Amino acid sequence: MKNINYINLYERERKKINKILSGALSKRKPSSLYEPGTYILNSGGKRLRPLLVLLSAKAVGGKFTNAYNAGAAVEMLHNFTLVHDDIMDNADKRRGRLTLHKKYDANTAILVGDSLLSIAYEYLLNDCNGNSRQVISAFTNGLIEVCEGQSMDTDFESRKNVTLSEYLLMIKKKTAAMAEMCCKLGALLGGGSNADVKALGNFGLNIGIAFQIQDDLLDISADEKKFGKTIGGDLVEGKKTFLFLEALEKSKGDDREKLLKVIERKGIRWNQVSNYKKIYEKLGVLDDARKEINSYTQKALKSINLLDEKNKNIFKWLADSLIYRTS
Amino acid sequence: MKNINYINLYERERKKINKILSGALSKRKPSSLYEPGTYILNSGGKRLRPLLVLLSAKAVGGKFTNAYNAGAAVEMLHNFTLVHDDIMDNADKRRGRLTLHKKYDANTAILVGDSLLSIAYEYLLNDCNGNSRQVISAFTNGLIEVCEGQSMDTDFESRKNVTLSEYLLMIKKKTAAMAEMCCKLGALLGGGSNADVKALGNFGLNIGIAFQIQDDLLDISADEKKFGKTIGGDLVEGKKTFLFLEALEKSKGDDREKLLKVIERKGIRWNQVSNYKKIYEKLGVLDDARKEINSYTQKALKSINLLDEKNKNIFKWLADSLIYRTS
Repeated sequence: MKNINYINLYERERKKINKILSGALSKRKPSSLYEPGTYILNSGGKRLRPLLVLLSAKAVGGKFTNAYNAGAAVEMLHNFTLVHDDIMDNADKRRGRLTLHKKYDANTAILVGDSLLSIAYEYLLNDCNGNSRQVISAFTNGLIEVCEGQSMDTDFESRKNVTLSEYLLMIKKKTAAMAEMCCKLGALLGGGSNADVKALGNFGLNIGIAFQIQDDLLDISADEKKFGKTIGGDLVEGKKTFLFLEALEKSKGDDREKLLKVIERKGIRWNQVSNYKKIYEKLGVLDDARKEINSYTQKALKSINLLDEKNKNIFKWLADSLIYRTS
Repeated sequence: MKNINYINLYERERKKINKILSGALSKRKPSSLYEPGTYILNSGGKRLRPLLVLLSAKAVGGKFTNAYNAGAAVEMLHNFTLVHDDIMDNADKRRGRLTLHKKYDANTAILVGDSLLSIAYEYLLNDCNGNSRQVISAFTNGLIEVCEGQSMDTDFESRKNVTLSEYLLMIKKKTAAMAEMCCKLGALLGGGSNADVKALGNFGLNIGIAFQIQDDLLDISADEKKFGKTIGGDLVEGKKTFLFLEALEKSKGDDREKLLKVIERKGIRWNQVSNYKKIYEKLGVLDDARKEINSYTQKALKSINLLDEKNKNIFKWLADSLIYRTS
C-alpha cells in the first residue's frame, strides 16, 4: 500500500473514532456532567492513540471492529489526563479552544475528568471477551504510569538537579507508557499471541519516547509557519526538556552558567530564545536529539520484526509520520 | 452469633483492611505521589464498604480471602471520591486531620485522587478470576454513578426547585450505588449465583439509601455529645437534605416562607437552628425520615431472604448498627 492509502485509512478511521466519541456522552444525564464531557471529546486532536489500538489489532490478524470501543476508551483516558493536567498547569487554551476549567470551572473539570475515565473503562469492557483481565490490566497499568509520570513532571518543575535519565523515565511513564498500552490493547483484542503483545507493546513504548523527544526538538527547531506557534516556548517556561538537560550535562563555563540561570529564574524571556538556541547548536544537542529519536525509532521497528511485510510497512509509515512531523 | 461476636469480627477485619491499605502505596515511587496517597489511606474511617464486600463474599459461600483486595479497592475508590470532593467543597478537615489539598495543594490532591483510583483497579484485578468482566463492570458502574451523583449534588446547590424524588435519585447515585457495588463485588468474588448478586446488590442499594437519610436525620436530631459536633450544620450550609425537601413539600404559609429563605440566602445562622428544628417537628418530617429509613431497611432485609439464617443475621446486625448509629 502506498503512503497516500495509509493516510486515507487514517482519515477514515479517525472519523469513525470521532463519531463514537461525539455520541458517547451526548445522551447521558446529568447534562451538567456530560455536556462539558462532550465539549472536550469534540475538540479534535490527532487521535493517534486509537490508531495505535486499531492497527495493532489488525497486525495480529484481528479486525478494526474488535477494537473501536477500546480505541475510544484510550482517547477518553487521554482526554481525562489533558483535562486534569490543564487545571494543574492553569492552561487557558487547548486545541484552539478554551480549556474545560476556563469554559466552566475547576470543580466541573475535576469531575468531568473523573467521569471520562469511568466511561473509558465502560467502553473498554465493551470490547472485552475471554481475556478481560489482561486487557483491563494493561489499561490500568498505563493509567498508573501516566499518574506517576505526571507527578514526576510536576516534581521536576521545582527541582534543580534533574538528570537526563530521570527525564527519560518521566517521559516513558507520562507519554510512552500510554502508547505501549494502546498497542498491547490492540494486540490483545485482535487475538494476538503473548509474543505479539510484547512486540507491539515495545513498538509503542519506543515510538512514544521518540515522539516525546521529537516534541522537545520541534519546540526549538521547527519552521514556525508549519509549527503554528513561536519556537522556544519550553525555554521561556523553563521546562527541563531532553535538549535542555543534555545541554546542561555537556556544557561548561559560561554556557553552563547561562543554562543554570534558566533553572534559577524558571525560564527566560522570548528575546533570549535565539541566544539559547545558539548554545544548543554549539553543544550539538539538536543533533543528539535527532540521533536519540532515530535510535528509539529503530528499536521500535526492530521489535515488530515478527510481523508480516504488509503490517510492518504500515507501522513504518506511522513511525515516519511521527518523527518527520512538523507540528 | 451474638452481636458482640459480630463487633469483634468487624474489628478484626477492619484491622486487616487497614493493614492492606497502609502498605498499598508505601513502597511505590515517586514518593511525591504515593506519600500523600498513604496519608489519606492511613486516615482511618469506618471501612464499611470493605466490610460489605467481605460479608457478601462469605454470604454466598465464599471466603473473606477471596475478597480482601477488592475490599481495599472499594476503600481506595471511596477515598478517591473524598479527596476530589474535598477540593470541590474547599473543606479543611476530614476525619480530624487536614484534607489532602490543605496539607499539600490542590494539584497534588487532584493527581493523588486519580492515582488512588488507578491503584483501586489494580487491587480489584488481583482478586479477579473467571468472571473479571462482571467484576470490573460492577465496579465501573459504581464509579460512573458516583460521578453522576456528585454532579447532581453540585447542581442542587445552585438550583432552587429540587424535588424530593430528584434528591432520592442523587443519593442513590452518590451513596447507595457504591454500597450496591460493594455487595455485588463480594457476591461475584465469593462465587455467588446471578440471583445472589442481584439480592445482595439490592441489599446494598436500599441500605445505602437508608444510611444517607439517617445521615440527614442525625444532623438535626443527634445527641451532640455522641454526634461529636453541633447539630444543624446542614441547615447552616443550606443543604437540600431529605428533611429539608420533605419539609418544603409539606409546608404552607409562614413556614414555607421561612424554608424558602434558607434556599435564597444559601443557609441560616447557627442561632436559627432551633427555630427550624421546631418547624421540622411541627411538620413531622423527623418522623417521616424515620419511616423512610425503616422502609428502605426493610426492603434491604427482604431482598436477602434467600440467604441462610446465619448470614441473614449478620446483615441484620449490620443494618441495625447503621440505622441505630448515633454518629
